[in-house]
Amino acid sequence: MRMFFSDNNSGAHPKILEAVINCNKGDEPSYGEDKYTKRAIDLLKELFQKDVDVYFVTTGTSANILGVSGLLKAFEGVICPDTAHINIDECGALERFGGAKIIYVPNREGKLKIEDVKEYIDKALGDVHQVQPRVISISQITELGTAYTVDEIKELADFAHENNMLLHIDGARIANAVVAFDSSFKEMITDTGVDLLSFGGTKNGMMMGEAIISFNRELSKNFNYIRKQGMQLVSKMRFISAQFIPYIEEEIWRENAVNSNNMAQYLKDQLAKLPGVEFPYVNVGNMLFVQIPRKWNQLLEKRYPVYVTDYETNTIRLVTSFDTTKEEVDTFIDYIKWVNENI
Amino acid sequence: MRMFFSDNNSGAHPKILEAVINCNKGDEPSYGEDKYTKRAIDLLKELFQKDVDVYFVTTGTSANILGVSGLLKAFEGVICPDTAHINIDECGALERFGGAKIIYVPNREGKLKIEDVKEYIDKALGDVHQVQPRVISISQITELGTAYTVDEIKELADFAHENNMLLHIDGARIANAVVAFDSSFKEMITDTGVDLLSFGGTKNGMMMGEAIISFNRELSKNFNYIRKQGMQLVSKMRFISAQFIPYIEEEIWRENAVNSNNMAQYLKDQLAKLPGVEFPYVNVGNMLFVQIPRKWNQLLEKRYPVYVTDYETNTIRLVTSFDTTKEEVDTFIDYIKWVNENI
Amino acid sequence: MRMFFSDNNSGAHPKILEAVINCNKGDEPSYGEDKYTKRAIDLLKELFQKDVDVYFVTTGTSANILGVSGLLKAFEGVICPDTAHINIDECGALERFGGAKIIYVPNREGKLKIEDVKEYIDKALGDVHQVQPRVISISQITELGTAYTVDEIKELADFAHENNMLLHIDGARIANAVVAFDSSFKEMITDTGVDLLSFGGTKNGMMMGEAIISFNRELSKNFNYIRKQGMQLVSKMRFISAQFIPYIEEEIWRENAVNSNNMAQYLKDQLAKLPGVEFPYVNVGNMLFVQIPRKWNQLLEKRYPVYVTDYETNTIRLVTSFDTTKEEVDTFIDYIKWVNENI
Amino acid sequence: MRMFFSDNNSGAHPKILEAVINCNKGDEPSYGEDKYTKRAIDLLKELFQKDVDVYFVTTGTSANILGVSGLLKAFEGVICPDTAHINIDECGALERFGGAKIIYVPNREGKLKIEDVKEYIDKALGDVHQVQPRVISISQITELGTAYTVDEIKELADFAHENNMLLHIDGARIANAVVAFDSSFKEMITDTGVDLLSFGGTKNGMMMGEAIISFNRELSKNFNYIRKQGMQLVSKMRFISAQFIPYIEEEIWRENAVNSNNMAQYLKDQLAKLPGVEFPYVNVGNMLFVQIPRKWNQLLEKRYPVYVTDYETNTIRLVTSFDTTKEEVDTFIDYIKWVNENI
Repeated sequence: MRMFFSDNNSGAHPKILEAVINCNKGDEPSYGEDKYTKRAIDLLKELFQKDVDVYFVTTGTSANILGVSGLLKAFEGVICPDTAHINIDECGALERFGGAKIIYVPNREGKLKIEDVKEYIDKALGDVHQVQPRVISISQITELGTAYTVDEIKELADFAHENNMLLHIDGARIANAVVAFDSSFKEMITDTGVDLLSFGGTKNGMMMGEAIISFNRELSKNFNYIRKQGMQLVSKMRFISAQFIPYIEEEIWRENAVNSNNMAQYLKDQLAKLPGVEFPYVNVGNMLFVQIPRKWNQLLEKRYPVYVTDYETNTIRLVTSFDTTKEEVDTFIDYIKWVNENI
Repeated sequence: MRMFFSDNNSGAHPKILEAVINCNKGDEPSYGEDKYTKRAIDLLKELFQKDVDVYFVTTGTSANILGVSGLLKAFEGVICPDTAHINIDECGALERFGGAKIIYVPNREGKLKIEDVKEYIDKALGDVHQVQPRVISISQITELGTAYTVDEIKELADFAHENNMLLHIDGARIANAVVAFDSSFKEMITDTGVDLLSFGGTKNGMMMGEAIISFNRELSKNFNYIRKQGMQLVSKMRFISAQFIPYIEEEIWRENAVNSNNMAQYLKDQLAKLPGVEFPYVNVGNMLFVQIPRKWNQLLEKRYPVYVTDYETNTIRLVTSFDTTKEEVDTFIDYIKWVNENI
Repeated sequence: MRMFFSDNNSGAHPKILEAVINCNKGDEPSYGEDKYTKRAIDLLKELFQKDVDVYFVTTGTSANILGVSGLLKAFEGVICPDTAHINIDECGALERFGGAKIIYVPNREGKLKIEDVKEYIDKALGDVHQVQPRVISISQITELGTAYTVDEIKELADFAHENNMLLHIDGARIANAVVAFDSSFKEMITDTGVDLLSFGGTKNGMMMGEAIISFNRELSKNFNYIRKQGMQLVSKMRFISAQFIPYIEEEIWRENAVNSNNMAQYLKDQLAKLPGVEFPYVNVGNMLFVQIPRKWNQLLEKRYPVYVTDYETNTIRLVTSFDTTKEEVDTFIDYIKWVNENI
Repeated sequence: MRMFFSDNNSGAHPKILEAVINCNKGDEPSYGEDKYTKRAIDLLKELFQKDVDVYFVTTGTSANILGVSGLLKAFEGVICPDTAHINIDECGALERFGGAKIIYVPNREGKLKIEDVKEYIDKALGDVHQVQPRVISISQITELGTAYTVDEIKELADFAHENNMLLHIDGARIANAVVAFDSSFKEMITDTGVDLLSFGGTKNGMMMGEAIISFNRELSKNFNYIRKQGMQLVSKMRFISAQFIPYIEEEIWRENAVNSNNMAQYLKDQLAKLPGVEFPYVNVGNMLFVQIPRKWNQLLEKRYPVYVTDYETNTIRLVTSFDTTKEEVDTFIDYIKWVNENI
């Protein structure tokens, strides 16, 4: 049954698994020296229209942590909104593996405001007692389902560079953002001046596929060692990298994101017709935050796992997936209607 | 073409990939709450005949590092032979992620001698200036293709426990050892008193499958957090855990290890007939260390990548795999004969 | 000239230096096995009326970091107000040395509110993706010159223990707090149930003297190793510990804190007479936060270094010291008056 | 009573304490901005005849660890002899604080041989699985009381630089080496091309005084942050730095080292007259390793703590100090004679 709980609950797109099967032919050099990895890297270069530096890993957490920690010296830190995945959903991995401080500032609907970064910089820069700001990290789409426009990303990148800082994007749902804004990876990431991207594939229909993508080879020149030290140098890497081939070549990324975005919109449209429902944020992409009547919760939970993100307002998070169907949304809405009538 | 360079060069056994395909059905809870993971854990409990605590991860390095660091307090260290994978092949991951010291002692044909551990304990125990010994880590099969007998493992485990220490086994090739000694996982691991096992599947025909297996739930009670912090909590975990189901249920582990062990023995038999060839260690399992005439190297390298492990004696490492065939060995031997005649 | 910038600008009380000189007699065992260290520890046990576990160190930062990190497992974190010294004034030392996350919550006039801790606990406890709360850390006196009453400390300690957490106090200015509330170390620390105290001496007239004091020997049983690993096991420790002997025996701690507290009060009384001056917080102890007319700053700075802590309100921090005199305060006030008249 | 156990058992030279007393005058900027620190740094520049970068700290361990870790990237390591203080006497501080691997090789009478470094480099350089070699660390005088000649240091520095590595010296007893070879700091350190020196003062008659001295300002440009993060930025730093003023200005370093070296020589001469005594190493400086008849141990221990460094040969370590006198040596020798006659 479709759960609307997380895009991680879905399996993989059939073409992705097909690629996994098809790469299982004979010996290949291990640790990323194989031909599938080479091909996947070439495709990413085309996608971003740049000679990017690519490191495949198996989890989004490792993409974020290995990437960000790779940019930081011992006494430098990363600034992000308090809602950031690296701040609250990675069990202190950056602090542990990177020994680095996360300076989290209040989020504005999940987003970072330059003013908040500026405030920290003004206080901390050059003060020996304080962690020196070096990386700004944002999530696109954010953890509250909102998103930065291309212009906003460019502003953040420019601000970062003006202040000798770097911009990292946690792109666990980056394809959904590109689709939502009818943009391209080139326009949204390469051209805005992003320095480092955690390119997420798993939530968008891959089996297991994440990539650290660096837009500045000087910065990432040692990332191969850092990935190994970070326990993420997969021996039979072809099984990770081969997934990226159809994902890019056949634009599975777009197909999947279009569907999950559309389904989230459809879900929103249906929910909007129900009494007592409100949408606290401007959600784009495949995550929907909805305030629902508190009295619904108990009965709703009988059939669908409910992820309350704000108890005060009884806001819940709903997520659609690459393989969510209209019928599944309709079934869900029907159940809610039934709940509403039977409480 | 078969490379004899590493068992990581092979792909995956067809039944393993079949399991990957078959688990791709509908929504499943993420992060290991799915039914495939539950089933795989149950099967491991049967295999080891114990209520073991299991954590699936994607690399052997992470199995070793998360496991061993999970056993150590800040000022405690692990003792291992200098040849240990955790010492020389993991790019300082234990020191980085665990902040822990590796006390490496001379290897005896790849193995650890109790005397060497004892020497460190005698000097360091209770001395505030020194890292306190807590874990003994050995590899089964060792990095030199040798192995510990069941009795030797038991002796090490007993010694560890008598000294308030724990025994960890890096079991990247543990199936090959079990098969080589015609033993069982229960007899070799559970009954000898091993505390923690890195249970390797990848090198033995899995796509990507490693498990941290704890034989003492009190010791591993927080490993779930450590795996997450260690960036190894895979979201769509079913794709890892499902591989373990046929691996254990259909004894793919045995089928694969039997073949690679047999092929290594066959390779050895053929090599032994050639002039100037010697075998420096007592190799069991699927790795063969061979001293060959130095003059062979250059021409050999034209067709087969050569991994020289000791330049002084011109010792090279050869590895067979779950899918190595007699014909492939014969082709390799024929080429060597041709090399020998044409230099 | 007296600076009113920091109590770290003062030297040491003559009796402290006398103790340093007097301990310079003949050989003594090193690394804390000397008789001065033993005596100082005994005196601290008397002071706290408990068999406390004591570790002398040379900086307040190390007292905080070694102590707090010593209480944390890898995936556990410390909760503190955002103003905490461990959060903003120790250059990420806890993250680096401890690999631990600091969960900082909004301060309430420098203080921590139980509600804020509770909010984090409610969200994070038992969630594998989140750092597990283990230590609450507060500063007494706080970084904004405010303080917790004995009852408030007891409430925090009780709350911590009810939630399987521990209470740490950064007591860089603990003597000032004890004096300000006319309390005792026993009443304020031992009896309230504090688990760990960074006992600061340097800011209160010592040359260099800080101590980690544990009220639970089980928790601190390995701190000797952690201090060594933390680079703070001083070889000729007598020169640190000897300072504590007169500090406690002759109650230099009280004499010094009484004077600096009184001088801060006197300074406040004089400032209060001036136009445009306001006191944003309830300051006790020897730190005074004062809103002054912005136009004063420039001229004031010509003679006295000015530490603006809030630019919006033009709040500055003034600190008195163990050896601050009425005359020095008068001179300062006279200069401010002159500034006020000459701008 | 004189112990001959460690130079850390001595107190401080009277002139050093005088400097401590004399700097206790009025307010001074904290954290190293004071005039004593400035003066001490200037004197060190004169001593080394170079514009060195200086960071005062309170322990030798912190000088070593903050310095060496400051030179390393995450995946880089330090190579040293197995006897190195950073390897066995600092409780894993480099691994913990620096997250870095120590690659220890066999010592040759306490010294490092270039061949051993070369062997590691040859295997590891550019291999993503291995920690990359970056720093060579040696101790002058070594932990076995031996020493490198000026030429040997130069060879090591040249070798390091030719291989894109750096040379660090743990100079806990550097003054004894300079005196022993009738050399100068300029000749032995600056001119040989040493990159980083842990300049030890404590063991040579200071109260507590160590300095990280960098000969390459680019390499150490961030050490101020690292010292703070390393918990070693002392607030009232004048009390550390003031000690260095007479130490250098009045050449207390030389006076002290001359005495302790001479006393070690005198001790050796007296011991040499006794039966059954042998000297396994070529000791220079103030440490003497002596093989003595095993039967002496028990009775000797009644009066003098005995530090057996090698049980097989019954080798003990004896250390003289800046304030050791001939009479104290004679008393010791007389006691040994008595022991020899009464067993």
